[in-house]
Amino acid sequence: MSDQKTNLLIFSADYDKALAAFIIANGARELDMETTMFFAFWGLLLLRDPEKMTLEDKSLYEQMFTLTTPKDAAHLPLSRMNMAGLGKMMLLDMMEDEDTPGLPAFIKGAQNKGVRFCACQLSLDIMGFKLEEMIPGVEVMDVKAYIKDAASAQLQLFI
Amino acid sequence: MSDQKTNLLIFSADYDKALAAFIIANGARELDMETTMFFAFWGLLLLRDPEKMTLEDKSLYEQMFTLTTPKDAAHLPLSRMNMAGLGKMMLLDMMEDEDTPGLPAFIKGAQNKGVRFCACQLSLDIMGFKLEEMIPGVEVMDVKAYIKDAASAQLQLFI
Amino acid sequence: MSDQKTNLLIFSADYDKALAAFIIANGARELDMETTMFFAFWGLLLLRDPEKMTLEDKSLYEQMFTLTTPKDAAHLPLSRMNMAGLGKMMLLDMMEDEDTPGLPAFIKGAQNKGVRFCACQLSLDIMGFKLEEMIPGVEVMDVKAYIKDAASAQLQLFI
Repeated sequence: MSDQKTNLLIFSADYDKALAAFIIANGARELDMETTMFFAFWGLLLLRDPEKMTLEDKSLYEQMFTLTTPKDAAHLPLSRMNMAGLGKMMLLDMMEDEDTPGLPAFIKGAQNKGVRFCACQLSLDIMGFKLEEMIPGVEVMDVKAYIKDAASAQLQLFI
Repeated sequence: MSDQKTNLLIFSADYDKALAAFIIANGARELDMETTMFFAFWGLLLLRDPEKMTLEDKSLYEQMFTLTTPKDAAHLPLSRMNMAGLGKMMLLDMMEDEDTPGLPAFIKGAQNKGVRFCACQLSLDIMGFKLEEMIPGVEVMDVKAYIKDAASAQLQLFI
Repeated sequence: MSDQKTNLLIFSADYDKALAAFIIANGARELDMETTMFFAFWGLLLLRDPEKMTLEDKSLYEQMFTLTTPKDAAHLPLSRMNMAGLGKMMLLDMMEDEDTPGLPAFIKGAQNKGVRFCACQLSLDIMGFKLEEMIPGVEVMDVKAYIKDAASAQLQLFI
């Protein structure tokens, strides 16, 4: 399927939805499909590098935003049943029992397999995040480039 | 890309998801793609005209529903971090800092650019909304017509 | 449209989103499209048969999970406005007023019309559910088979 493409728009910052997205992205690459993930809005939180957080050159709101949102993918909540973290602990334990790697491992795996990581330009601007605060290997992409890529993909999802 | 189509099913009534949807719809039209937005379930709330709300000919539940849901797009909550409106205020302020227009401006822009707005027939019936309560320029579309349009689009998303 | 395919990935376990998914699946089959629903993560909860719940051969977490999640599709909450079940009661009453069948009827209808129901292998493993706990007629499918099916579909959505 090497002439086929997958494009995933990652809007949510839920641990479980992110997991689903990266499992699909990894699978698509294993099927040799060209795979692009476009991180917009809350999805940017998946790309944060906790070591590189900065408050410099940010407005007060941007600083608050930087400080009050999850500081990396490992700290994202579940979309439901989070129950102050208990549901997530349960899920992580169940995953461990099945030898299923966690979200950070899936993210690393996707990058190693050649999944393209793109941060939405407009979302970076609005939320006040800088590319330097993100994990390495992330490109910046605007909405029109996203639309062109997604429209040329055989599989495209909004997650 | 004028021979290509975009179809967005808008199910959610979250301010941030709606923003993402309209940014994509505007971008698709700027790329000259034929673009249809199909508003179903909570998505109908994006189309409400606060001046045209009516309780006539509605069952008690439909009246309660009309009164307790957000009365137009500007009043929609965020999908997360809403924090009694504080998160949304933060987002709106950050958008203003970047000169990014708000949701009502994106909706108007989409209509001016020729994005087709379709309200789901079944959702109107179930929720007890009338087409007269919606902003001008909205068509009614049934599920099968939606499926045909979406299946013929190169880019189709459920938002 | 008998040469066309629809593929729906059902991730959420919200009553309203599930309703939307099954309305689309039923419509696609009525248009003679080959239709596959792939139930992953919380989506598995839609397939549970309350009569067949078991705690045997499950870890403590899996047992807790089995007991604390909705035991079938009829008991799923709404994605918003659930208000301790009041919003859902309102929706169900409004649907009844319009002679719209509820979720269990739509599920049965989809099966009768030949919609293919597939449970995500990995999700079954992680959540500790067994195929025997599900309603009849469900197949197990892995992620790669899902990707292949979805990429060959004209309409594919993540719900």
